Amino acid sequence: MTIIADHHVRGSWTEQAGAAVQLPPKALAWLNERVGETVPSAPIRSDAEVPGSLLTEAAAVELAGVVGERYVLRAPADRLARTGGLSYLDLLSRRLPGELPAPDAVVLPADPDEVQAVLEVCVRHDVGVVPFGGGTSVVGGVRALRGGKPAVIVLDLARLDRLVSVDPESRIAVLQAGVRAPHAEELLAEHGFTLGHVPQSFERATIGGFAATRSAGQASSGYGRFEDMVAGVRLATPAGPWRLGVAPASAAGPDLRQLAVGSEGTLGVITEVALRVRPRPVVERYHGYVLDGWERAQDVVRELAQNRILADVTRLSDEDETDGSLRLSGGWKAAVVRRYLRRRGVARPCLLVLGWHGGSPREIALRRVAVLRVLRRARAVSLGRAAGESWRHGRFAGPRQRDALLDHGICVETLETATTWSRLGELRAAVRSALAGALGDPLVLCHISHAYETGASLYFTVLTARDATDPVGQWQRAKEAACAAISSGSDRPLGTISHHHAVGTDHAPYLAAEIGELGMRVLAGAKDAVDPTGILNPGKLITR
Amino acid sequence: MTIIADHHVRGSWTEQAGAAVQLPPKALAWLNERVGETVPSAPIRSDAEVPGSLLTEAAAVELAGVVGERYVLRAPADRLARTGGLSYLDLLSRRLPGELPAPDAVVLPADPDEVQAVLEVCVRHDVGVVPFGGGTSVVGGVRALRGGKPAVIVLDLARLDRLVSVDPESRIAVLQAGVRAPHAEELLAEHGFTLGHVPQSFERATIGGFAATRSAGQASSGYGRFEDMVAGVRLATPAGPWRLGVAPASAAGPDLRQLAVGSEGTLGVITEVALRVRPRPVVERYHGYVLDGWERAQDVVRELAQNRILADVTRLSDEDETDGSLRLSGGWKAAVVRRYLRRRGVARPCLLVLGWHGGSPREIALRRVAVLRVLRRARAVSLGRAAGESWRHGRFAGPRQRDALLDHGICVETLETATTWSRLGELRAAVRSALAGALGDPLVLCHISHAYETGASLYFTVLTARDATDPVGQWQRAKEAACAAISSGSDRPLGTISHHHAVGTDHAPYLAAEIGELGMRVLAGAKDAVDPTGILNPGKLITR
Repeated sequence: MTIIADHHVRGSWTEQAGAAVQLPPKALAWLNERVGETVPSAPIRSDAEVPGSLLTEAAAVELAGVVGERYVLRAPADRLARTGGLSYLDLLSRRLPGELPAPDAVVLPADPDEVQAVLEVCVRHDVGVVPFGGGTSVVGGVRALRGGKPAVIVLDLARLDRLVSVDPESRIAVLQAGVRAPHAEELLAEHGFTLGHVPQSFERATIGGFAATRSAGQASSGYGRFEDMVAGVRLATPAGPWRLGVAPASAAGPDLRQLAVGSEGTLGVITEVALRVRPRPVVERYHGYVLDGWERAQDVVRELAQNRILADVTRLSDEDETDGSLRLSGGWKAAVVRRYLRRRGVARPCLLVLGWHGGSPREIALRRVAVLRVLRRARAVSLGRAAGESWRHGRFAGPRQRDALLDHGICVETLETATTWSRLGELRAAVRSALAGALGDPLVLCHISHAYETGASLYFTVLTARDATDPVGQWQRAKEAACAAISSGSDRPLGTISHHHAVGTDHAPYLAAEIGELGMRVLAGAKDAVDPTGILNPGKLITR
Repeated sequence: MTIIADHHVRGSWTEQAGAAVQLPPKALAWLNERVGETVPSAPIRSDAEVPGSLLTEAAAVELAGVVGERYVLRAPADRLARTGGLSYLDLLSRRLPGELPAPDAVVLPADPDEVQAVLEVCVRHDVGVVPFGGGTSVVGGVRALRGGKPAVIVLDLARLDRLVSVDPESRIAVLQAGVRAPHAEELLAEHGFTLGHVPQSFERATIGGFAATRSAGQASSGYGRFEDMVAGVRLATPAGPWRLGVAPASAAGPDLRQLAVGSEGTLGVITEVALRVRPRPVVERYHGYVLDGWERAQDVVRELAQNRILADVTRLSDEDETDGSLRLSGGWKAAVVRRYLRRRGVARPCLLVLGWHGGSPREIALRRVAVLRVLRRARAVSLGRAAGESWRHGRFAGPRQRDALLDHGICVETLETATTWSRLGELRAAVRSALAGALGDPLVLCHISHAYETGASLYFTVLTARDATDPVGQWQRAKEAACAAISSGSDRPLGTISHHHAVGTDHAPYLAAEIGELGMRVLAGAKDAVDPTGILNPGKLITR
């Protein structure tokens, strides 16, 4: 475990989580043709300015008394290493001149008791606390805001990295909040189990972060959203420790686990999560299909969801994403695929990737029967297992590819929402039109990656030439237009402001439209009970 | 629609919901042999004393201004008709001498707007409000407590009985809170849909009540618990109207729907619920099996749950319930079944009822394959479809049979809990031992009716000879002992204080052990936001 992160760890995804992904020259050429000429970006700065620490010596001494001196970090490099998340604007800020907002100190407690004791020190000194896991927020969730407090620390949970217990009979494992997803899978694999939670942030994100943000992984159709896995949760709060979760289901009042989950560090620091686990799959099988036209393709996913026969991974790209992905992958294969589909009479190809996990090939074959019946009726064209495996192989590459695109001068960002099936078409059109209005003629790729009986998510990837003079304002205007489109609607918003990225700072202005002013007051009332002085993640989610 | 309920509607289940169920003489003889001689009860009183109404004339006039004079009922008979629920002690109180607690008036609003306006009147006059649906609470949830207020009204939602809308594409139907379950099924059937929510209270309970109490139906393994069906909810609160629910899933902060659901009328009056519906099944197939010994039988249900191949109805009775049910059904068949099982070498028969709903016999046959494999390995003995159909036929009879048992002088009540699989044996033993300690040698029947990957529910039926001198104290002591056993445990309770009956007054003392003192304060904080003067269901769930 590296506890003193190197200066640049937050500068890009690449440096920590694997090799950089270069774009093939052909892909770049196509992109430039599509979005216009770009001006290559400045590289990530190595000489970032960090503001001085405002943490008082008295507070620092008390914090050191809890966690030990070596776990209270005040050097600029350490503070910079936990500055903000990984949104496009976060990445951009590390290339542009100007001071980077940074916490006044980084504190690394060893266990839940130390987390509790740190909060008590922070209450006494009125210091804000930003819980920090993998730092992969793309909505400003881990931005170290002081929110009116004289100082703010980042509470880095990296040392809470243990598997606490496994109950194989109940299939529940208790993991500490700082365990990163790949490490969680390693720890569980020793007992034959898996979480099956594989969001795109998998390589870096943590158990606590998943719970705090209601994460949803690529295999959510099979394994559920993260909150579906949460059997119990342990929190440290300024008002004292708090444990929730006794039974798989209960009628003992409202489900407060569902209040803790998604609270984004504002109602307590999640220190341990009891999670439903499943046996590790023996076989995984991925397959690619193509459907003709978004409407028909969407109907197929709806039928699978409503018949409750979704594959564990079910992912449908629209025409633009299908075409864009093929072209961005470069190579000769893309052209061959396009020709093949033309010959099969597919005018508007939409790629459907299905992935099954199972205990035996036979089990998967049985599950596929009902799905193949639906696909045949919809005249799906099979691209075979290679297309499925190709998606699986590259499924964590997105965040890494972004660095290459930024280098090249591309504005690239994602956003996501969800709604009921009957409003999905309207929602997709509204977001596309808002992005087009703000960005001219951007490339907008869209897919459904999470489907339910009553609706589905929409995930958009936006690419355009970066505005050389006002790159920040360029994206801010686009994001605001998209959020306004999502939040529009006569009696209720067209879609949720976030299906799995959470609220953070970026979505905060739109939350009241979704849960009502009354909902905002209810959250504030809950916060009064657990965090009366408001030290937890100041300026996020809950406003008072 | 009968809006002026007759005097006796609350006296027993029978009078409203169907014919009385008489016990066969042989069954009664066996019961007496088992629990001892009983003294027949006094019949339900027809001359109940009702306290005078404390509602001021000024408040009554304003309420009449909102709903119309004929929908503000102050006659003793009307108030008595909405007095309390249907627990054993509720039923007993209608047979014993003494004043019955009754609301000071009954108000019947026509729609959500009138509900909102009624609340505003009640805030002005500081009048408590008890939302009332089917009145089937068995935990004191609809007891009209004044809780420090000068007066309390029952808000009878019987007139909110409409299907508001159906979205067939998204499979969502919006139902008003006062729609009773059978009526909901009729309304949905016109559109080809069903909720599939069939708790034992089905004949009388309402949509609003299901949501307010986190109800779970007999087919919860297939259709989910009621909260799983809730796509959205509309509430009236003293702080204003409140709507929740935009998308099937969201990361826009905590899921406040899950705070409204289970709030038992303390955080708002639920006026409409948007519900996930499914196509009505074309085929239903029920089947009875017998397994030898509770431990093995429980393992079978666990395996089905963890392999995610549960039948839509999955219900496992323990040895005592299997034997007791056979004997209480009387007739010659019971003896034949016992003989048949003895011949097959089943020493400790546990009845497993499985029920499948589907679109075709083939679909059900396919689903059964995997289940039958598990059953064969566990040496299950099939009792055929007749045994399954027999359970289905009698599945709503329990509440009705209770009246006959009460007549006969039997103390009969149910209680339920849930926990993780690894603690289920300990929980069952603890509850049985607590009941035996309090009641001598009662007949305790137990079944699992709701199974999950990580655990299951336990439902107990207790029968004993009624104590002739202190029948109320007899059951109170038994209930307290059972609740104490459920709430015991070193770091967390052994089980949840309620899996699907809710908290009401009876479980209130045990809630803090489950959600923590901090959880109690969080609920109080939420209530401050929506009901600052505390008029909603005073004295229930949330204490301040």
